[in-house]
Amino acid sequence: MGETIDPAWLPDEALRAVGARTVRVDGDGVLVGTVRDEVARACGMFGESVVGGSEPADLTLRLAEGGSGEGFTLERAGRRAVVTASTGAGLLYGYFHVVRLGKAAFADAPAETHRPALALRMLDHWDNVDVHPVMGQVERGYAGGSLFWQNGRARGELDRVRVYGRLLAACGINAISVNNVNVHASEARLLTGRIGEVADIARELRVHGIRTHLAVSFAAPVVLGGLDTADPLDGRVREWWRQAAARVYAAIPDFGGFVVKADSEGQPGPFAYGRSHADGANALAGALAPYGGTVHWRAFVYDHRQDWRDRTTDRARAAHDQFAPLDGQFADNVVLQVKHGPIDFQTREPVSPVIGALPRTRVAVELQATQEYTGQQRHACALAPMWSEVLRFRPGGEGAPSVGEIAGGGGLVAVSNAGDDPFWTGHPLAQFNLYAFGRLAWDPDADFGQLLAEWIELTFQPEASSDPERLRSGLRAVLGGSWATYEKYTAPLGVGFMVQPGHHYGPSVEGYEYSPWGTYHFADRDGIGVDRSRATGTGYAAQYEKAWAETYESVDTCPDELLLFFHHVPYGHVLHSGRTVIQHIYDTHFEGVEEVEAAQQVWASLGGLVRPGVHARVSERYEEQLRCAREWRDQINSYFLRASGVPDAHGRTIH
Amino acid sequence: MGETIDPAWLPDEALRAVGARTVRVDGDGVLVGTVRDEVARACGMFGESVVGGSEPADLTLRLAEGGSGEGFTLERAGRRAVVTASTGAGLLYGYFHVVRLGKAAFADAPAETHRPALALRMLDHWDNVDVHPVMGQVERGYAGGSLFWQNGRARGELDRVRVYGRLLAACGINAISVNNVNVHASEARLLTGRIGEVADIARELRVHGIRTHLAVSFAAPVVLGGLDTADPLDGRVREWWRQAAARVYAAIPDFGGFVVKADSEGQPGPFAYGRSHADGANALAGALAPYGGTVHWRAFVYDHRQDWRDRTTDRARAAHDQFAPLDGQFADNVVLQVKHGPIDFQTREPVSPVIGALPRTRVAVELQATQEYTGQQRHACALAPMWSEVLRFRPGGEGAPSVGEIAGGGGLVAVSNAGDDPFWTGHPLAQFNLYAFGRLAWDPDADFGQLLAEWIELTFQPEASSDPERLRSGLRAVLGGSWATYEKYTAPLGVGFMVQPGHHYGPSVEGYEYSPWGTYHFADRDGIGVDRSRATGTGYAAQYEKAWAETYESVDTCPDELLLFFHHVPYGHVLHSGRTVIQHIYDTHFEGVEEVEAAQQVWASLGGLVRPGVHARVSERYEEQLRCAREWRDQINSYFLRASGVPDAHGRTIH
Repeated sequence: MGETIDPAWLPDEALRAVGARTVRVDGDGVLVGTVRDEVARACGMFGESVVGGSEPADLTLRLAEGGSGEGFTLERAGRRAVVTASTGAGLLYGYFHVVRLGKAAFADAPAETHRPALALRMLDHWDNVDVHPVMGQVERGYAGGSLFWQNGRARGELDRVRVYGRLLAACGINAISVNNVNVHASEARLLTGRIGEVADIARELRVHGIRTHLAVSFAAPVVLGGLDTADPLDGRVREWWRQAAARVYAAIPDFGGFVVKADSEGQPGPFAYGRSHADGANALAGALAPYGGTVHWRAFVYDHRQDWRDRTTDRARAAHDQFAPLDGQFADNVVLQVKHGPIDFQTREPVSPVIGALPRTRVAVELQATQEYTGQQRHACALAPMWSEVLRFRPGGEGAPSVGEIAGGGGLVAVSNAGDDPFWTGHPLAQFNLYAFGRLAWDPDADFGQLLAEWIELTFQPEASSDPERLRSGLRAVLGGSWATYEKYTAPLGVGFMVQPGHHYGPSVEGYEYSPWGTYHFADRDGIGVDRSRATGTGYAAQYEKAWAETYESVDTCPDELLLFFHHVPYGHVLHSGRTVIQHIYDTHFEGVEEVEAAQQVWASLGGLVRPGVHARVSERYEEQLRCAREWRDQINSYFLRASGVPDAHGRTIH
Repeated sequence: MGETIDPAWLPDEALRAVGARTVRVDGDGVLVGTVRDEVARACGMFGESVVGGSEPADLTLRLAEGGSGEGFTLERAGRRAVVTASTGAGLLYGYFHVVRLGKAAFADAPAETHRPALALRMLDHWDNVDVHPVMGQVERGYAGGSLFWQNGRARGELDRVRVYGRLLAACGINAISVNNVNVHASEARLLTGRIGEVADIARELRVHGIRTHLAVSFAAPVVLGGLDTADPLDGRVREWWRQAAARVYAAIPDFGGFVVKADSEGQPGPFAYGRSHADGANALAGALAPYGGTVHWRAFVYDHRQDWRDRTTDRARAAHDQFAPLDGQFADNVVLQVKHGPIDFQTREPVSPVIGALPRTRVAVELQATQEYTGQQRHACALAPMWSEVLRFRPGGEGAPSVGEIAGGGGLVAVSNAGDDPFWTGHPLAQFNLYAFGRLAWDPDADFGQLLAEWIELTFQPEASSDPERLRSGLRAVLGGSWATYEKYTAPLGVGFMVQPGHHYGPSVEGYEYSPWGTYHFADRDGIGVDRSRATGTGYAAQYEKAWAETYESVDTCPDELLLFFHHVPYGHVLHSGRTVIQHIYDTHFEGVEEVEAAQQVWASLGGLVRPGVHARVSERYEEQLRCAREWRDQINSYFLRASGVPDAHGRTIH
């Protein structure tokens, strides 16, 4: 007996507006077939029928001749809607656009054309084939097991993969990498002897317009090929990659490409052979080029065996130091995949200066939908506002391109938060992160409030509930400010990494303070923060273009929320907000817990308005979120009271 | 091909004095047979022969009629030695006494009689049958795998167990518990369906006078017996234990008894049924009594889910609070097994007040030979000086019995540090901890210097080396003060638990500060330590008898090395040594590292004087010890400089 799988943002009710109308689908091809199946399903459910031939229909979905791309046009007049697209993918996205609009799709409106701003909208699954002794089946996974792998084997249950593909298509995602960027022994073999298992997955994803990618080991020519080197400039190595690519494409003709984490946290890479990252990436790219494949080369390179005593090394600088000088050296089918911040998916980081530093390189921006540092899907934390800030940031200053625009060259990538959990994401409200990621990858300027509203309408179908407005406002209340709330009760003012070592859940103020990971805050009895200024610190601030370099360089102009990322200041330092740093710490930590308490109450009040299973699961998560938020509040406040000796101005309890 | 197993303190050369002489063994029985085999082996090696009948011999080992106990008498005259004992065990101990004496055994001397001060001299193996996902094959084991179990099964290689038994007999140990006190599913079944595997081990140990014990689950009647309760006052439960004991003794007639960790760190116990620990222990004791078996009931009971915010609960108090009121309620064949300190085998703790608090109860004192908190057998740390301090401590004050005397009622127990490592203990010098434990269990007043000398002579056979005096003095230098050195570079002044959470290796000043484990130091910008006085603290100090309660109650009389265990003081507090607390921290941490550097150099100079394999392994360990000691020094010093703001008086580098 299988568990019931949550329908996420495609509950049956979401199909009513389509299914209760006559629909016609014109065209041929795999993806048009998918659209036709979708329509048949909706109509079968709500009593109307698919019409054929040239019969007029309420909704016409039409593949136009010629053209390319994933866009579509929607025309609405006289209660009829026509979607036209040049490709099956465009028609599929147009169909899901109609689903999102619901009844409104059939109200008169001017014609509108939609095209994705980014050609590559990708999920990276950090799924292991074997269960890793420390990281488990899914590295940093908080949603059960993997959708693809189980205990060393392909899961086989491809039905679920197909349903997953459908959900992703409905929010615009068109690429998936199916294994962890940390490539262990079994995972390495997916590239060669086990490519058939990847092909089985690709077959299921293809019908929803999703191309499959594979994370590979840079050492594959040695590990799998039996060569004595993986030197990217060695002819035998290049030949090995060429043959490997040929075999991959024989199995998966629309294979997307390789994802590579090289010379990073112990993974092999070109440094071992005295070669640059460009040499390394280009060797693989050469093998993929004949087939239209892409190499996603990750820029997450730093010294993870740093000596904490060494104040001259700054992990934040590492990626820029490594990659900025390589601009222009990468092949056309190499994408440099850059984490959005310079460290590692903390709750608050500045935008990585790497993103704007390689104008002649295709750059993809990597986000983390899986909530490694943002509550691990036990805390409600809607990440879209953070992502929007990143995507709208202009590395070159006012008038220069935004991060979203720059990512147009390479794509937007998120580490997936989905697994075999019945709710897909452990915390049902974390589905919104997956959904919003896809939508932002389609349109990086999309408005958070609108995305949230859209997701609420689809997922919770308020109109079908007994109190639509209370449901909508309740959901907005618990998710709208949830990232800000999370930030309040965790590490303050951009300082980051006050988490428990290893699993990264819950507070440990000094957990990473004397570690080799390059993650320090230097708190002492007088103050806290990392001086990354050019004048007196590590010089990281100077990696930005002028406008931002100047902004971050000075304590006076650095935004409050990033102050401790860029500067070491006394506890008595007065923020732009007018509060001292120490009082800000106390205040935000008390506020953050109060906000969780309030959200929990709001959620409780929604009982009866949402599906009982969802309500129960989220209620249970709020219990844990509140417990953990209190732990954060008390440990952070106690630590800083002990360190500073400054009492809370409001006399609240600090233990 | 098996690895070569290190001979530890019984290298062939140690048998020369016996083997090069004529020897006669008189008597019958299993253990006399063992002595006979030993003699035959020694003589076979060094050319002399075992003589029979009434022939005179250089060494006569004679079983006398009547009598009991494990003692023996050695008479020496005219270059001949005669060992007389009433039991085979006594004769075996007498034989190894002769081996220890070497040539000196045959020099004229007055007759001497030796008897063990403690009847029970026991090793607890925290060995798991299954590999535990977190703790591995041996919980807190740093010497490879288990000698008994491997991946869920008995190892089968019983030859090694027999060699182990021989080494233990040579230092006086006469009991072993063969599985972890945390009894998981497979381990529980050793008591019933898998008792045959235990019997196989017992057979090998028996020939060296060692009785086998088993750690059992208090919930066995439920888990194994299918009962709906493990209530110790329930007749069915008692009957289940009776039948279980009967089956155990059918398989192992000289079975020693059960070891029980109940109501402790998640293990089941009598509290679930509203019964006392005396009820629980007595139920099991009743089942064992007909066969002469003993229940070792551990006193390690505390709340391991404490809230760090709760300043009223003190883990140090827990065992005394629980067990002192139960004095007189335990059956005769129950031994209350008490850790030597009130917390958990820290480098420095006061002696547990429980040990002297139950005059009408048999008490065993538990030590930890495995170096969980003392360097995990990567650091050289000879623990005998710590153990001697414990054993000589007089809980009732001057004139009252010592801990060693009190333990005469129940025994001395150590958590074993041995595994399937070729050197037995990972760090070859950690063999001394095993040896010294056995010898102190035989004679708790034994002198550390003499034990060390004795072990050096046996293990390293200096006379056979090219420079006996340099070898002796070198070994004394590296081990003699090694515990003091370790204490210097780790947690200061008795404060304890500044270790990395989970594995407990290496420094983390705040690693346990906000944990549920009841292990706090309360360091802030002004001072550090736990107020356990009666007047202003948790009252723990008042659990001692008057003399000690008064000594510990006052900052003025509390010994420096325990100051922070009993008191919270400012960093500027002046110790009896004349130094401030903060300067003591800096000084000892610099000194500790210097002492490790010096020890490493001494060890390096012994190359050529010790077996090459031993020299190489110890050299490798010193590399790690020095690295780790520097890490301790720098983290501890940095932490306290940051907290206190007080610079080092000598201007040394603090990062």
